Amino acid sequence: MQASDVQTHPDYPVPETMKAWVLGDPGELRLIDKVVPTPKKAEVLVRIDAVAICATDLEIIAHGPPAMIQGGDPFNKNFTPGHEYMGTVVALGPGVDEYNIGDRVTVEIHAGCGQCKRCRQGMYTSCHNYGKNYGKVDKGHRANGFTTDGGFCEYQVNNVNTLIHIADSMSDEEATLVVTAGTSMYGLTELGGLIAGDSVVVSGPGPIGLLGAAVAKALGAQPVILTGTRDNRLEMGKRLGADYVINVRNEDPVEAVRKLTGGKGVDFVVECSGAPNAVNEAAKMLNRGGKICLAAFPSDQAPIDIAYLVRNNIYLYGIRGEGKSATHRAEAFMRQKRFDATVIHTHTFDMEDLPEALRYAKDRVEDAIKVVVRNKHKAALAQAAE
Amino acid sequence: MQASDVQTHPDYPVPETMKAWVLGDPGELRLIDKVVPTPKKAEVLVRIDAVAICATDLEIIAHGPPAMIQGGDPFNKNFTPGHEYMGTVVALGPGVDEYNIGDRVTVEIHAGCGQCKRCRQGMYTSCHNYGKNYGKVDKGHRANGFTTDGGFCEYQVNNVNTLIHIADSMSDEEATLVVTAGTSMYGLTELGGLIAGDSVVVSGPGPIGLLGAAVAKALGAQPVILTGTRDNRLEMGKRLGADYVINVRNEDPVEAVRKLTGGKGVDFVVECSGAPNAVNEAAKMLNRGGKICLAAFPSDQAPIDIAYLVRNNIYLYGIRGEGKSATHRAEAFMRQKRFDATVIHTHTFDMEDLPEALRYAKDRVEDAIKVVVRNKHKAALAQAAE
Amino acid sequence: MQASDVQTHPDYPVPETMKAWVLGDPGELRLIDKVVPTPKKAEVLVRIDAVAICATDLEIIAHGPPAMIQGGDPFNKNFTPGHEYMGTVVALGPGVDEYNIGDRVTVEIHAGCGQCKRCRQGMYTSCHNYGKNYGKVDKGHRANGFTTDGGFCEYQVNNVNTLIHIADSMSDEEATLVVTAGTSMYGLTELGGLIAGDSVVVSGPGPIGLLGAAVAKALGAQPVILTGTRDNRLEMGKRLGADYVINVRNEDPVEAVRKLTGGKGVDFVVECSGAPNAVNEAAKMLNRGGKICLAAFPSDQAPIDIAYLVRNNIYLYGIRGEGKSATHRAEAFMRQKRFDATVIHTHTFDMEDLPEALRYAKDRVEDAIKVVVRNKHKAALAQAAE
Amino acid sequence: MQASDVQTHPDYPVPETMKAWVLGDPGELRLIDKVVPTPKKAEVLVRIDAVAICATDLEIIAHGPPAMIQGGDPFNKNFTPGHEYMGTVVALGPGVDEYNIGDRVTVEIHAGCGQCKRCRQGMYTSCHNYGKNYGKVDKGHRANGFTTDGGFCEYQVNNVNTLIHIADSMSDEEATLVVTAGTSMYGLTELGGLIAGDSVVVSGPGPIGLLGAAVAKALGAQPVILTGTRDNRLEMGKRLGADYVINVRNEDPVEAVRKLTGGKGVDFVVECSGAPNAVNEAAKMLNRGGKICLAAFPSDQAPIDIAYLVRNNIYLYGIRGEGKSATHRAEAFMRQKRFDATVIHTHTFDMEDLPEALRYAKDRVEDAIKVVVRNKHKAALAQAAE
Repeated sequence: MQASDVQTHPDYPVPETMKAWVLGDPGELRLIDKVVPTPKKAEVLVRIDAVAICATDLEIIAHGPPAMIQGGDPFNKNFTPGHEYMGTVVALGPGVDEYNIGDRVTVEIHAGCGQCKRCRQGMYTSCHNYGKNYGKVDKGHRANGFTTDGGFCEYQVNNVNTLIHIADSMSDEEATLVVTAGTSMYGLTELGGLIAGDSVVVSGPGPIGLLGAAVAKALGAQPVILTGTRDNRLEMGKRLGADYVINVRNEDPVEAVRKLTGGKGVDFVVECSGAPNAVNEAAKMLNRGGKICLAAFPSDQAPIDIAYLVRNNIYLYGIRGEGKSATHRAEAFMRQKRFDATVIHTHTFDMEDLPEALRYAKDRVEDAIKVVVRNKHKAALAQAAE
Repeated sequence: MQASDVQTHPDYPVPETMKAWVLGDPGELRLIDKVVPTPKKAEVLVRIDAVAICATDLEIIAHGPPAMIQGGDPFNKNFTPGHEYMGTVVALGPGVDEYNIGDRVTVEIHAGCGQCKRCRQGMYTSCHNYGKNYGKVDKGHRANGFTTDGGFCEYQVNNVNTLIHIADSMSDEEATLVVTAGTSMYGLTELGGLIAGDSVVVSGPGPIGLLGAAVAKALGAQPVILTGTRDNRLEMGKRLGADYVINVRNEDPVEAVRKLTGGKGVDFVVECSGAPNAVNEAAKMLNRGGKICLAAFPSDQAPIDIAYLVRNNIYLYGIRGEGKSATHRAEAFMRQKRFDATVIHTHTFDMEDLPEALRYAKDRVEDAIKVVVRNKHKAALAQAAE
Repeated sequence: MQASDVQTHPDYPVPETMKAWVLGDPGELRLIDKVVPTPKKAEVLVRIDAVAICATDLEIIAHGPPAMIQGGDPFNKNFTPGHEYMGTVVALGPGVDEYNIGDRVTVEIHAGCGQCKRCRQGMYTSCHNYGKNYGKVDKGHRANGFTTDGGFCEYQVNNVNTLIHIADSMSDEEATLVVTAGTSMYGLTELGGLIAGDSVVVSGPGPIGLLGAAVAKALGAQPVILTGTRDNRLEMGKRLGADYVINVRNEDPVEAVRKLTGGKGVDFVVECSGAPNAVNEAAKMLNRGGKICLAAFPSDQAPIDIAYLVRNNIYLYGIRGEGKSATHRAEAFMRQKRFDATVIHTHTFDMEDLPEALRYAKDRVEDAIKVVVRNKHKAALAQAAE
Repeated sequence: MQASDVQTHPDYPVPETMKAWVLGDPGELRLIDKVVPTPKKAEVLVRIDAVAICATDLEIIAHGPPAMIQGGDPFNKNFTPGHEYMGTVVALGPGVDEYNIGDRVTVEIHAGCGQCKRCRQGMYTSCHNYGKNYGKVDKGHRANGFTTDGGFCEYQVNNVNTLIHIADSMSDEEATLVVTAGTSMYGLTELGGLIAGDSVVVSGPGPIGLLGAAVAKALGAQPVILTGTRDNRLEMGKRLGADYVINVRNEDPVEAVRKLTGGKGVDFVVECSGAPNAVNEAAKMLNRGGKICLAAFPSDQAPIDIAYLVRNNIYLYGIRGEGKSATHRAEAFMRQKRFDATVIHTHTFDMEDLPEALRYAKDRVEDAIKVVVRNKHKAALAQAAE
């Protein structure tokens, strides 16, 4: 890292190179040495202390990023995936005074270009220059782990807009979950307009769904209903704030929701299951004027009853992740202990053992939900800093 | 009409009975004598001077109302369809001072119950008591021509919330088109948040689509692109405000829209075609963060690429008609001559010839678009009032 | 109470007459016998079990309602004040199925006309027919305790739109505080758009201010700062959720707020003090683009630095009470024990002793904050109902 | 201008130095030679073809910028004022592909930092790093003519976010008025939420007021009422779209507005007069729930009846200029000839004669409203480019 206008601090020495996992052939990861990147204007360098594994990481390792727009094949090009990370600020690029060296931070994924229509509206996760951070015209958009290098390594550059200060009381592992909670928060509040007293169904108790139930409850939603197929996940949902759970193997979820709401249906469905008939079922769970937040990426097209949506003034909106600084709100709730996100954190591995950690996440070994990998050198580095 | 607390005026005498078209067997209409209804609190009696025929009327006459929720079969029960009407106020129920006897008015369809969650939010077209104006508990919701008697007759009761004053300079025929323009207005502004300079595609040059292009242009949208299959309709769209038209028989509309917008795509698609792949095509025409307003009622389910919507932060919302007083805004624009809605008015018949008028509308005889039926006694009645 | 279309139940007998406090001369209350009113369409009869005293009640008893628009002098006309009440539904007017006889409910004040522009937008507390519930044209607006009879009596009629179901676990006394919390909720969320993580100053630890701090914290605001002159009230604010308190007798509140926020200022100030320079100070506490919610009714005009507001894009908005169903959200938070509103309830009296209760409230005898009067017959009546 | 990553074009040669007006002592301007600035990332260099004079320019020349936050005294430091300019793009900084060399553009003033809370919300004119574009930490905020050098010179650097493409049919002079119309647009739509059919009073027929009336009418407002003291200005307002005008020397404006609206009052007042009692009068012109947009910068504090605002749910909001890309919408309306902004353009001078132009603007010589100064070399330069 060499740039005269970058600030560093002797307590946080930054090496020239680092260990980084990179995509080899599809399905394969390799651990290599990489140059530590240099923060530019409005960017910092983060020493990565912990990273949670997301289902999308598995997808990227197997098939490439879902919105592969860099052109061409991402494999064997030294691309580093991983996006749900947290760490410590170790260098400041020009123009940064929002963060200091030594600050513990967690991250959100998207740094908008700041120039397009959506960014100027504050909708930076819908940036019209998504992916345009390479090539002849660098628009400055970054989506670390998707279009720019991510967190399965020792150091990464982040735009200050993607950082969130975390409370001292929050563990590294908990901090990696802020962006997941922030995604649900974004879907429910900034996009959906949920307010206390609104009723919510969350379908699909994966990480976004489980934290979605937690966030909905923390926002004052009433009731919060979680649907799924596995009782242990549903029980977890109850601990996080779901008032009712419905195992769709045992009962019809539409009927069950109608019954729980006195026939009225709910105001929101957060669709995290990706099941083939999920959108039609969600529509039937809603009252007139209700909203469906689409948070899953189904691989196939699904037949949808458009006329039902039209007749019932139903809204659908897709979220590709967090947005509108919702991660800051999620962190505020977590800091205030409104819900215990660590309920979904099940396993921890060293960063060196990433392939094994990925196997746990993929095959749900020992009922794994959120698997976190840690930088084992952190303790030593942190000590050195004192 | 007998009620001690109803105000009438000698210049506008109200008879005991009237001629009214009613549903017989499916597909059949009968002209009968009916008692003139009595306005209750916050209602007026309107003498119907002109009614436009909507595609939904044809649907109702053939199959019953699209959201038949009165329970059971609407046929042979003396139900009067027709909802795009205008006329003259001839009696005032209790508590009305917003309108005077003799006022020319046009109507919107939905009078919300005023008590449910959506009505209290101002979303009265999503009223949770839709259709509950009969039976043990009268919630006061009305949707004339859908759940309560409509306008193919001589007099009808309307809640004051469904009335719009019309300019003297507006003809009866033009006034029947306010609710159609209001539906597009509602979809674009109150629900969609369109502002001047946003880009819009309207797919399907039926009445809502054509006036949708007109409203979009009047609101300052740029560009406004209309797609369809018939050149004469597309030409009409140009006269109403479309900057560009695309005949989908001649070119791929997604490619054409991309080309017209420098590759960027548009901010809004108003989907009025109901074509099987319309939603997927609309999504592909949009830029990231764009919105689809669903205004058609397709009869079949359509396969939709949910993942594409999610990845691109696309919003879909259905409109079942006008709302949020958008008809008042449409009337304001029409009064100011921002567009000439009469372009889509093609034929006029006497109310007595309703079956022939319906045939013109249904079979598009002589390229019929909006067919209007008139009360031929109006002239005599109006004269008597002077 | 006589009306063939009103439902009653033998367990909840309704007498013909009741005891009611009414305004005599300014400053004087008399206890008289009054006819029990009859609920009309969409109204219920509530047996009043408890009423909290609001500063506005003292104002009304001394000077008449703040927006006296009934015309003329309210004194010696048997007007019953009192608006923060709760009780039990004992009769249903026509068209009501949202509530059952025997339901425990608390109330909000304003029932909009349902016909004006603001009501149709959902802004029913800004009803353009405010006060027009008497006279030639009854618009149906009610503001019990302000323009229609209120709660210092045994029974009162309420529009169903003004009722809120309460949890069994909520005491009568706590239930009387829902509308106060709802007022703060309305100012912060529906009008202000506060979201978790925003920073808030509440100036003035009266009932609205104290519950304002509680509501802000429950919504995830961070930090919540309370300013005032009395340490015991400020301590109470801490128990309700304030992160910091500032005694303005000891330090300059603008400087203190700037210091607590790292120089940045806050996103919201809820101005409940009514102090002469309060608005200018609030403006100086805000960051650029911040908002001031005006919740106090100062008796004198105050000089305001308009240019400062303009240069800093500051918003001001007045709230005359609750709105947008915010009381339902407040009840949802209180039901979930997000804050303990009973902290501000200090004294209880029998309804018969209302004058003494008012003295406590007015003179802050024994540091009184919220003084509640109860119907001492409730226990007997409730027992009879079992 | 020297930077290896800046694109230029031989048809648009950029000199090393230029003529620029700069502040001398208070009230004094000097014409000096200055180095032509170099565009950085996301910036372009604009050759200035025309500049309109704003009242704020006169203020700045006499007293310094209204929000002088650079610290210290702006005089005799070679600061160039002038902010309402238009011109031709002659060089592109890195990362720019939204504009090409040779494009005609007009400008808005504020380029937000892109990093603060408000910028991330899309509220870039409320940037929390306003003025922080110098010093140790460059946040990148620019407000040309206020905190960074402006347009009374030959070339200036602009962030691409401050540029608006203009129609070929729009004259240079008309293009300088886009930002004024955009300011009114921002206040009415993005901040105020005005929709067609809402009623508007504009008080004060200065440039913002006159174009405010024009914008309100173009948006479908009804009625639009303009108040002022000079009949010739009010007549101009009529040509621009005002339905009614009120000369406050002849009649009481509150009474007149009430009369014109059937006693109801209006939904919006755009306060551009800065008169001492203007806010109280505006409040009295509004209906309950109405809004006041503050667009004038009064020099003194004004006494305001806060209780009236509270009781009537009135909103006030200040605008310090354009925002939310409203200039693009203004340009869209002007391009579509919805109103003729050139009505307010009264005089043109050469840039060399700026002092004389300023005198016309300041003293309203020959009823001057908008005085424009032009670069007399433009014709020659433009010819050279062909």
